[in-house]
Parts: sequence; C-alpha cells; structure tokens
Amino acid sequence: MALIVQKFGGTSVGNTDRIKNVARRVAKYRANGDQLVVVVSAMSGVTDGLIRMAAELMPLPSEREMDMLLATGEQTTIALAAMALHALGIPAVSLTGAQAGIVTDGVHTKAKIKNITPKQVHALLDSGNVVIVAGFQGQTSEGAITTLGRGGSDLTAIALAAALKADLCQIYTDVDGVYTADPRLVPGAIKLAEISYDEMLELASSGAKVMQSRSVEFAKKFKVVFEVRSSLNDNPGTIVKEETANMEDVVIRGVSFDKNQAKVSLIGVPDKPGIAAKVFKSLAEASINVDMIVQNISHGSGMPATDLSFTVDKPDLLKATQVIASLRQEIGFAEVLSDEKIGKLSIVGVGMRSHSGVAAKMFETLAREAINIDMISTSEIKISVVIDLVKGELATRAVHAAFLGPH
Amino acid sequence: MALIVQKFGGTSVGNTDRIKNVARRVAKYRANGDQLVVVVSAMSGVTDGLIRMAAELMPLPSEREMDMLLATGEQTTIALAAMALHALGIPAVSLTGAQAGIVTDGVHTKAKIKNITPKQVHALLDSGNVVIVAGFQGQTSEGAITTLGRGGSDLTAIALAAALKADLCQIYTDVDGVYTADPRLVPGAIKLAEISYDEMLELASSGAKVMQSRSVEFAKKFKVVFEVRSSLNDNPGTIVKEETANMEDVVIRGVSFDKNQAKVSLIGVPDKPGIAAKVFKSLAEASINVDMIVQNISHGSGMPATDLSFTVDKPDLLKATQVIASLRQEIGFAEVLSDEKIGKLSIVGVGMRSHSGVAAKMFETLAREAINIDMISTSEIKISVVIDLVKGELATRAVHAAFLGPH
Repeated sequence: MALIVQKFGGTSVGNTDRIKNVARRVAKYRANGDQLVVVVSAMSGVTDGLIRMAAELMPLPSEREMDMLLATGEQTTIALAAMALHALGIPAVSLTGAQAGIVTDGVHTKAKIKNITPKQVHALLDSGNVVIVAGFQGQTSEGAITTLGRGGSDLTAIALAAALKADLCQIYTDVDGVYTADPRLVPGAIKLAEISYDEMLELASSGAKVMQSRSVEFAKKFKVVFEVRSSLNDNPGTIVKEETANMEDVVIRGVSFDKNQAKVSLIGVPDKPGIAAKVFKSLAEASINVDMIVQNISHGSGMPATDLSFTVDKPDLLKATQVIASLRQEIGFAEVLSDEKIGKLSIVGVGMRSHSGVAAKMFETLAREAINIDMISTSEIKISVVIDLVKGELATRAVHAAFLGPH
Repeated sequence: MALIVQKFGGTSVGNTDRIKNVARRVAKYRANGDQLVVVVSAMSGVTDGLIRMAAELMPLPSEREMDMLLATGEQTTIALAAMALHALGIPAVSLTGAQAGIVTDGVHTKAKIKNITPKQVHALLDSGNVVIVAGFQGQTSEGAITTLGRGGSDLTAIALAAALKADLCQIYTDVDGVYTADPRLVPGAIKLAEISYDEMLELASSGAKVMQSRSVEFAKKFKVVFEVRSSLNDNPGTIVKEETANMEDVVIRGVSFDKNQAKVSLIGVPDKPGIAAKVFKSLAEASINVDMIVQNISHGSGMPATDLSFTVDKPDLLKATQVIASLRQEIGFAEVLSDEKIGKLSIVGVGMRSHSGVAAKMFETLAREAINIDMISTSEIKISVVIDLVKGELATRAVHAAFLGPH
C-alpha cells in the first residue's frame, strides 16, 4: 500500500464533468489499495473572476484581502471534489490549507511555507478517507489566510508529500511530461522517463515552463520524488528525482529555447573596479531579474574600456534601459544598446560533467546552420547561447538532432 | 462613541456597485466616530450557483462538504467589502466566522452557536479598524467549517452584538422595517417605531417573515436591541427590544395573514385518551410542523366522538394526510378531510393582556364582513383565526382598520 499525493491544476477541475474525471482517476488508484491525498487548484476562470471583482473596487487591493478572496477558489474545488468521490462511493474529506496544517509566513500573496503539521491528514487517511487538500493556500501562525503565489498548488503537493513522507507525488498537468525539447518546435522531441532535479531546474530557468522552479527546489531540498504527467490520458509521465549514476550516460537531457529574453549592452565602459557592481545593484533595486551577464574587451581605441552585456525578461527591458541611462553620467559609458529580437538556446544535462567537447559540438552545429552566437554562458550542467530570435526554431532543431538524434 | 453591528443581506451586496453602497453607508457611521462590525451574507445568486454545482455531482451531497462549499460565498463578500472600504480610505479587516471566534456544534448545514470568543474582533476594533465578519458560518471546536442554516447571517449579527455588548445591532434588508400589516395588502399600514421581542416572534410565526424566529429568540435571550431597516434609504427602521411599560398602551401592534397554511381534519375520532398524542407524535416523527390544533365535540350521533383539526405548512399537506391515513385502522376515525384554500389571520400585541374585548372585536369585525371563522387559537399576546384563503385581503384590511384605524 503506497501513499500517493496527486495534484490537479485548474484546467483539470475546470467544471463538474472534469471534477468527475479526477474522481474516477483517484478511484482507480484507490482500487489498487493506495492511500491518496489529492491537492486541487481553483477551477479555471474562477480566480480571474475574483480578481476582476476586486479590480472593480480598488486598483491595488490589499494583499491580505486578496488572499482572503482568492482562497475561496480552492475551497470551492475541494468540497466539489469530495462530493464527486462520494458519488463513486468513496469516503473523502476536504481540508483547507489551514486545516491541513500548512503554516506560512505572513507575506500575503506570496507566502512561504514555514512548516506543515498534517495531523488531521494522517487521522483522516488512517480512518480510510481520501483527503482532498486546497492547494495554493495556508495560514500564518496567527490564523490569517495566506496564498503561496504562482505555482502554489504544485508547492502544496510537494510540501505535503515531504511532510507525509509519501511514496510518490504526481503532478497532473496538460502535457504528458518533460520532453527533450518543445514538441511544437521539434517534431522529433521525445518524452523523458526521468530527469534529475538540477536538470529540471535548469530547463525551467531556460524557459521550459512545466513547473515553477520553487516547487522543484523544494522537492530537491526534501528529496521528494515526483512525476509530471497528463490528466488527459493514462500515459506514464516523467519522474523527477535525485541524480543517479546512470543519468550521466546521457550527455544532454534536453534543449530549450527561451523567447522571453532581451539584451542590453553598455558600450565603452571605463575599465575600473566597481562598475559592474554599481550596474547590477541598481537593476536589483529596481526589482529587475538579470539572467546572463557577459563582459568583454571593447574594440574601441583610447582609454581602456570594456563592453558589458546582460539579458533580462522582455517585459523588464524598458525599465532596465531607463535604469542604465540614469547611470550614464556616474559611470561614463559611451552608449547603451538594447535588442529584444533575441532568444536564449540552452542545452542541459548532468552528463556534461563527464563528457568533453559538448560546448564545441553545440557551437559547431550552430555554425553549420550559419547561426551567429551573440553571448555565451555556461554552468556545470548547462550551456546557454543568445542568438537571433528568428533563428530559434532552426537552432533548436539542429542542436536537438546533433545531441539527441532524429527519432 | 457607540459600537454598532450592521448586517447586510445578499441583495445588499449583490454586485460590486452595491458593495460600494454598503461601504459608503458604513463610512457615514464611522465619520460619526462609531466603532463598526459589519456582517455580510453571500452575494445574491452565489449560493444558488454553488448549490447547482453540488447537485451536478450528487443528489444529496454530504452536509459537511456543503458547509465547506457554501462558506466560500460569505468569505468572498467579506474580502470585497474590506476592499470597498479601503477604497474610501477606511481601515478594514475581514474575518471568517471561524476567525471571528464563532464556535458552533457539529450539526452541519444547521449548526447552533455554542459560544463566541471575539478576541480578534476586539483587537482589530481597538486598533481602529472596521471589522467585516462573514455571516452564516462558524467552526466546531475541532476546526470543521459549519453553517448556521436559513437566516444564519442575522443570527451571526445578533450573536456578535451580544458577545461584543454592542450598543446597537442594525439588520439591513429590503423593507423599511416592521409594519402594522403587509403594505401590499393594506395600503394604510404604518411602520412601527418599536416592537417587543415577543410581538416580533408572534408576527414572524404568523407569516410576517422579516426575520427568522431563531434570530429574534436569540436577541430576546441575550437582550440585544436591534433595528430592522432598509439598505436602500436612510429612513429610521423599527427597533426591536424588550417590552416596556408604555408598549401596553397600544392594544394591537400588527395584523398578519399567513397564506402558507393548510388544514387537516379528522372527523369522528373516538373520544378516548391517547388519541391526540398518537396523532401528533406520528406527525412529529415525520418532521411535520403542526401550528394550530383545535378539538371539538363531533356533531355525529352514536358513539361519543370528536373532530380534531390542525394546520400545517402547505408543502407538508400531502405528507400529513398520508401519515394520518396510515393511522386510520389504529385510531378508527370516520374520515380525514384536508383543505389548502385557507389562511391564518393573526393580531398581535402585548396590550391584549391589559385590554379586554379584543377577541370579541376581532370576531365582530369579521362577522360584519361576512367572513366565516374556521378555527380559533389564542396566546397571551396573539389571536389567530383560520379563514377562507380568498377572504384574506379583505379580512386583513377590515381588522387593521378596526384596531389600527385608517391613516
């Protein structure tokens, strides 16, 4: 008898028929004798409707009251899901995040889980119930209702799996699992049977948004094995777990292309200590996330100077160039350029550590396709390059074929 | 500085514009320096929508899960109401029933309030907030969410007013207050400035459904003075309070006509002890509420026998006649008759105690209009008669004119 935590997102519980489907799936596992904890999100559209009403009352509603408001979405789903299980003759009890013992800090709308005391969950499981838990929410130790921010329901599932020492955590979504590349870009992309936490994290940060990084990080920290799989079929998904020895046999786990990046370049930056610190401190203070950073010797003449380039999320580009422009007098660079017609191509795999020539093979492949590389950045298990946005699809296919072959 | 509890029903908070109206009204009281606790219901239509979804999943959903589901309705309203107050620059904090310290028994969908520990309400009031509390809901001492059943939000307001020792409790509704008669039936009906708990209870049980009896009973028990008034205008409403000496100066406080009654008569019941007990025990076991009971000597010949008549709510008539029919062999009555074309006319007033001839005047008035009296039942402060349904309007007007005069 295994203890399984299953998480179903807003689309999977989008109406009562879909909730019945979820109940049938849960029933199948239960028929195998498994104990089940089911985490659900708000029905798709419900949260948007609540946000719309809030916006009719105030441009920037209080975050405490937004949490009070939005928490009703998941609470509605848990009650309906319990009823759907009852209709199949299965004992089930719903619990809000607070009732499930999820205690968070007091940072409303993006609270962090501090601890979980799943006393009631255990008691209900022991007395033979399926336990339905509201995702995305918790309460402070003072009893205020909080929400966990984007991807919060995944986090609830993984954190509960950790606290309950579950045998498996299943994240049901609208894709079949994690692929070697985006199947819409690369027809030959194949679904991975397994992937390590680190590879999953690097893929997520490279634009392959199956899950938010924080949930994967939480799983890694607490060694929660989880499976990403589809709520639309019974195909096995992708198991995300700690790295195992044989994972290094595969050089590259996946290829991803992130279109959501833009590049900023400062040309002719005086070559003095403290300049980079000043630039990135100012950007951080403006809450702009910087991804890749590259510094090179400038090709100009005269004073010793360098060129400094970095990438930011596309929506932050305007703010970033404004921040940089405001530093011009102080730093004294020659000019600032920006480019949003770029993308970031990444290859990810723990096998890189033990295989040489991976970078060379990637660059060669791109050269063969006459694709110019703008910036390069590497980590232990990832190589990322910035290229022309319009070359993204061609580059992804070529690199996928070079490392993962045609299938 | 007074502490006022205000309650707004589902129609008064039916959309964001109406919630803004509620906020403006609260703001006006606050500008006077009053401390305010605002109890709100679910937005009209929301509860029905939730019930509809539940019905799509199960014919008779679990009552625990119905409570979990329906409690989201009020939780949505409190968050929105707090935001609407914030938009007016007024500090406000919302609390669920559980957070407001409302502890109930575990009878889901019709829980009874066991106690209220409004620690958080006090703390928030003391720090200058308007406190918005979800009506209709509470939690058990084990932390399960419960709802209080029909009229539950009124009960929340009155119970909170009692626990907080509020100076006044205002029940906002879609009528201006309690009238001497239904203004749709009697154009000359006037709004009462005040009424005693007992009179209000007798009127409620006579079909004048401004409020559920249980809320009035609760107010009487804990001596909570409350005002029934309109959320659509600023007219003063009707104050409901303990009987005062001068209340007896008015013989009749009001006249009501209850169309929702039906009559069942057992003809030729053997005149033996225990028969009535058997009849009403069987009805009680079938959860049928009996209102008036009248027993009279039968006009038949032969064995000593009586006629036994009683009234029930119209929807219960079929069930009641079935119960009675099933007793025929055992009891041996001659026949059972039923009539749903009747209504109950009542006059209510604490002044009856000290004024004689009230019943006579009522009967005379009806006789003058050629209205036949079918059954009579009296209490210390009420006289009720069963008459022809179609004569209801005529009878109400005539009796109103006789006791309360044309205005």
